Amino acid sequence: MIVAMLENATEEQIDAVTDAMVEAGVSVHRTTGATQTILAGVGPTASLDIDTFELLPGVSHVHRITVPYKLAGRAFRPEGTVVEFPNGAKIGGNQVAIIAGPCAIENRDQIFTIAKCVKAAGGQFLRGGVFKPRSSPYAFQGLGIPGLQLMHEAAQEYGLMTVTEVMELSQIEHMLPYTDCFQVGARNMQNFNLLRELGQIRRPVLLKRGIAATIEELLLSSEYIMSGGNYEVILCERGIRTYETSTRNTMDISAIPVVHKLSHLPIVGDPSHGTGRRDMVAPMAKAAVAAGADAILVEIHPNADKAASDAAQTLYFDQFEKLIADLRVVATAVGRTL
Amino acid sequence: MIVAMLENATEEQIDAVTDAMVEAGVSVHRTTGATQTILAGVGPTASLDIDTFELLPGVSHVHRITVPYKLAGRAFRPEGTVVEFPNGAKIGGNQVAIIAGPCAIENRDQIFTIAKCVKAAGGQFLRGGVFKPRSSPYAFQGLGIPGLQLMHEAAQEYGLMTVTEVMELSQIEHMLPYTDCFQVGARNMQNFNLLRELGQIRRPVLLKRGIAATIEELLLSSEYIMSGGNYEVILCERGIRTYETSTRNTMDISAIPVVHKLSHLPIVGDPSHGTGRRDMVAPMAKAAVAAGADAILVEIHPNADKAASDAAQTLYFDQFEKLIADLRVVATAVGRTL
Amino acid sequence: MIVAMLENATEEQIDAVTDAMVEAGVSVHRTTGATQTILAGVGPTASLDIDTFELLPGVSHVHRITVPYKLAGRAFRPEGTVVEFPNGAKIGGNQVAIIAGPCAIENRDQIFTIAKCVKAAGGQFLRGGVFKPRSSPYAFQGLGIPGLQLMHEAAQEYGLMTVTEVMELSQIEHMLPYTDCFQVGARNMQNFNLLRELGQIRRPVLLKRGIAATIEELLLSSEYIMSGGNYEVILCERGIRTYETSTRNTMDISAIPVVHKLSHLPIVGDPSHGTGRRDMVAPMAKAAVAAGADAILVEIHPNADKAASDAAQTLYFDQFEKLIADLRVVATAVGRTL
Amino acid sequence: MIVAMLENATEEQIDAVTDAMVEAGVSVHRTTGATQTILAGVGPTASLDIDTFELLPGVSHVHRITVPYKLAGRAFRPEGTVVEFPNGAKIGGNQVAIIAGPCAIENRDQIFTIAKCVKAAGGQFLRGGVFKPRSSPYAFQGLGIPGLQLMHEAAQEYGLMTVTEVMELSQIEHMLPYTDCFQVGARNMQNFNLLRELGQIRRPVLLKRGIAATIEELLLSSEYIMSGGNYEVILCERGIRTYETSTRNTMDISAIPVVHKLSHLPIVGDPSHGTGRRDMVAPMAKAAVAAGADAILVEIHPNADKAASDAAQTLYFDQFEKLIADLRVVATAVGRTL
Repeated sequence: MIVAMLENATEEQIDAVTDAMVEAGVSVHRTTGATQTILAGVGPTASLDIDTFELLPGVSHVHRITVPYKLAGRAFRPEGTVVEFPNGAKIGGNQVAIIAGPCAIENRDQIFTIAKCVKAAGGQFLRGGVFKPRSSPYAFQGLGIPGLQLMHEAAQEYGLMTVTEVMELSQIEHMLPYTDCFQVGARNMQNFNLLRELGQIRRPVLLKRGIAATIEELLLSSEYIMSGGNYEVILCERGIRTYETSTRNTMDISAIPVVHKLSHLPIVGDPSHGTGRRDMVAPMAKAAVAAGADAILVEIHPNADKAASDAAQTLYFDQFEKLIADLRVVATAVGRTL
Repeated sequence: MIVAMLENATEEQIDAVTDAMVEAGVSVHRTTGATQTILAGVGPTASLDIDTFELLPGVSHVHRITVPYKLAGRAFRPEGTVVEFPNGAKIGGNQVAIIAGPCAIENRDQIFTIAKCVKAAGGQFLRGGVFKPRSSPYAFQGLGIPGLQLMHEAAQEYGLMTVTEVMELSQIEHMLPYTDCFQVGARNMQNFNLLRELGQIRRPVLLKRGIAATIEELLLSSEYIMSGGNYEVILCERGIRTYETSTRNTMDISAIPVVHKLSHLPIVGDPSHGTGRRDMVAPMAKAAVAAGADAILVEIHPNADKAASDAAQTLYFDQFEKLIADLRVVATAVGRTL
Repeated sequence: MIVAMLENATEEQIDAVTDAMVEAGVSVHRTTGATQTILAGVGPTASLDIDTFELLPGVSHVHRITVPYKLAGRAFRPEGTVVEFPNGAKIGGNQVAIIAGPCAIENRDQIFTIAKCVKAAGGQFLRGGVFKPRSSPYAFQGLGIPGLQLMHEAAQEYGLMTVTEVMELSQIEHMLPYTDCFQVGARNMQNFNLLRELGQIRRPVLLKRGIAATIEELLLSSEYIMSGGNYEVILCERGIRTYETSTRNTMDISAIPVVHKLSHLPIVGDPSHGTGRRDMVAPMAKAAVAAGADAILVEIHPNADKAASDAAQTLYFDQFEKLIADLRVVATAVGRTL
Repeated sequence: MIVAMLENATEEQIDAVTDAMVEAGVSVHRTTGATQTILAGVGPTASLDIDTFELLPGVSHVHRITVPYKLAGRAFRPEGTVVEFPNGAKIGGNQVAIIAGPCAIENRDQIFTIAKCVKAAGGQFLRGGVFKPRSSPYAFQGLGIPGLQLMHEAAQEYGLMTVTEVMELSQIEHMLPYTDCFQVGARNMQNFNLLRELGQIRRPVLLKRGIAATIEELLLSSEYIMSGGNYEVILCERGIRTYETSTRNTMDISAIPVVHKLSHLPIVGDPSHGTGRRDMVAPMAKAAVAAGADAILVEIHPNADKAASDAAQTLYFDQFEKLIADLRVVATAVGRTL
């Protein structure tokens, strides 16, 4: 940590800050400039609440120097993490994976039809929700575990892996038999009890960035999971909240190369939630692949306009098939396969 | 709902949209202008996913006309809600209430000392955390139920009510004997399972606004609780995330009068989390009372710089006592008591 | 315009609002629902300050139905605008154009070396600044018109067109002999006097989106230029301000397809300003092309680390050459040339 | 400046960074920790583009230590600046000043009626616009200098000072005879040519914060004016752009105490633009005074609903008179007069 003193800080104030740092277990190196004194602290600062030092008399600013995550950092696994699945699919390698499905599972016919379409288009993952977090208590809330069983059957039929959102601790054990990859939704990105519990299982976790979360906070949340021993974490950019209203969220494509620089974890682009508009899904999916995304997650439905949830951002089958064909070309253009 | 067609929409497109609206159970009134046609839909639109209509051919924009909440709306209780507590304290009436305590409960001595100080200053509520949601898995995580028991004893000793954060469904029953008011933290504002469960109990809930939540979303979350039958909901403004970094969050003081206009629920100002800086707590607490806040929530600690959590925003006892004295004058200036 | 009345609005209030609308020259169509009355207004609403109606007694919300711009709208030129330049370059057609150069022109050698590199890589436009808007009054402020003359000579030598930023009305006439395309910077996007003046000349204008501007506001600003008769406007996405700090701005790639849907004007992606980091320029340039950008604007310098301005986001020549080669493949993948 | 090296930085990389710092005229102090090396640079770093160092191989982060402004800093005038006007009014002292008037000057009758009302309520400043920056080119654009002459006459009649917005360099000399205080609007906060020119005159400047400007950027803009020798700068908080849409902007009340801490300049609260809604002006004006604002700026009009501009946020005379009476009580409560 670095403590920059105010220009007019007194020698007594500098001493008091130095003492406080030493008391916190930090070694202090002092640099006295013409106008300003700087105190550099070395030691166990990761667990310190450094904001406290900013309020000591005579202090101008305090900066944290070390990044607050360890296991999620690129240095931990410089070669990058590749998450492998029982059907042979991988997320994080050279191939760009496809994760697709309905926002909500509605019935057997729907999910089997969709699974067939995903497989035919070359996808590896079937994704669907059975517990729906809806802003309004009066909206459709999902089918629960029976819906998940249907999805699991459909996935097995077509050799796909299931991805589905867990909303709460107590659901994990009931979902485990039918879930190949647990999704943690944007609203739960900082549900630390849930993250910790997912660190205890040995099943991949797809962790979505919260709508107001920084990339650093996303990495800290992945650290919660990894610190329990589960290193199979896949991150997901799905749009952040900004002042712009022409899209539901602003999909932060730059999060993809930033994550690749800071972390070894793979990152997925979700243009469906990232834009909230069916007509923006294709250009943003291509942008995500061009920027280096390790997989694309899209919502599809045979009768998209009648989907029980997120209809406005859901693709029809023909739109999905065309998108996959187009993405294949873009992936090749950036040296990947799909 | 209102569907505005594009200027060059064809008669076939207008008919198709009209049919889709009617099929969704909505009565349609058409207005044909010189340049544009408008379709006004009347009926059960609250449960419709209106974004879907925006993607139909020929449509320019779709607007929701009805507000998506009912029980939280001002019209439901025009006179306003006053939440009353067993010790006679009220939140929502003419008196501005004081809620104070440490971010985290650390030990018996600490919480008893603080309870005594809150009472002496004229406060009615003792607030402290025992399950701490920390961004980093390596930070202090709280004492759990034993800590809550300590707080409850201290509160009883001094005639105060306890306010503490619930993080998860399964904690509710264990907390119930010691908790006079459940706090739902900003990170859980859209943890709908938790909200629904809190709707089933009969104990007041202090619901904090999420750092990226709109006021409408805050009211929708309160609707989740109220739709279960628990109408004793108290809202809390505690800062939103913006691009400005000189304060930890940007405390949106205007949320106070906006909530008072849209809803009957009382609203609390939390300048500790709203600013993240001890030296900004007093001016922002005064601003909140001047703007009409029904209570002020502040973090205090006998040795604020050594607090186990949120030290930088925690007041010392003498700062707290001076603040309460100052707030009393401001409350009087706006026709309230404290 | 649509006026939604409150559920408990009285008949007198509805009449008063109707009268106010009629007085403003608007025809009113009334829809009376079970719980709510809606007034649809048809007429010259584009010039009305509709917010006023929102404050009338009994009113819940007011929505503008017509988009507030006309000339910038897609309907005005459904086939799209292609801006053509004397050297044969086009922005807006099938070919993706390349605009490159230093942030600031420093001397003859620098700008000739850069012009040669731009040409060799296949670029068509040489861009450099001579009036630098710097946040700090103590930073380098640019060479002025003599610098522009140098850039013009270099551009002529290599058959390139010049693009440079105009900061103020009075500069236009002095810049005109040496400028093939006037850039309006993000900070001046709503300098309406400047925009109006640029509407009076017949020279293309590259209009950058302000860091807090909505896409609608960007289109309104382009309308200022076009309403003067200058229809050769090129828009530019260069990053917006959000809470995320790992990149200087958040480059809103979705603005590219959104502009293409709403407007006929071409749009350029600027990954240099969009990210502020040299190592993020390449992935974001690829993403912009994949999403449909009509040109890419990048900052280059033979000695990037020593550039007098924006050094951190400036590419070295070899990085630029590799980027152009890579972009050519991505452009082909999305059906464009480069 | 502080350069934090990556954990795995090599000795060669550390040497290269050290050399680059020394070459830039900075003295380097090295701290070698168990996991990380830190380089503290002391010297003329204010004019350095420190982002460049962040891209050198082996570098993790770079922090600026010194604040980038000098004349605007609190240390420059610890006692605070009080701007005095010919009519005896002061902004920055113990008394809270009142600045009021119409958004746009419409005619002689209007401005004289308003001047009389401002004086009667105890205000000292008459504010009105004659050059209106409107987002739409089709909206009312203002009366120009003749309108300003009318305001000046009205102000003289009632012993008030005039405050009006300058939009462009060339207007200054024409406005000078009639203007007691030049307002720089939010859109021009970073129009550096204009700021520099205002630094050359000797007339107070009211500088509004841009809608996406940080407080640091606001202080840097004031530095532009002060570096020309004009130290009579008054800052103004008028709302920033956030994701919340229930108010036009989010008025950042915390900017008031933050500016008072960082700078010696006075700061005005503008609840009219800060909220965009007439019914939110009073609570937010009280909040601003409670938080320490040195003046309040409000828009008033005898027939507010028919105002030519900003009607929705404009107060009627009786609302204004009541507000001033209420503010007087709040000012007293925080130890000020009004």
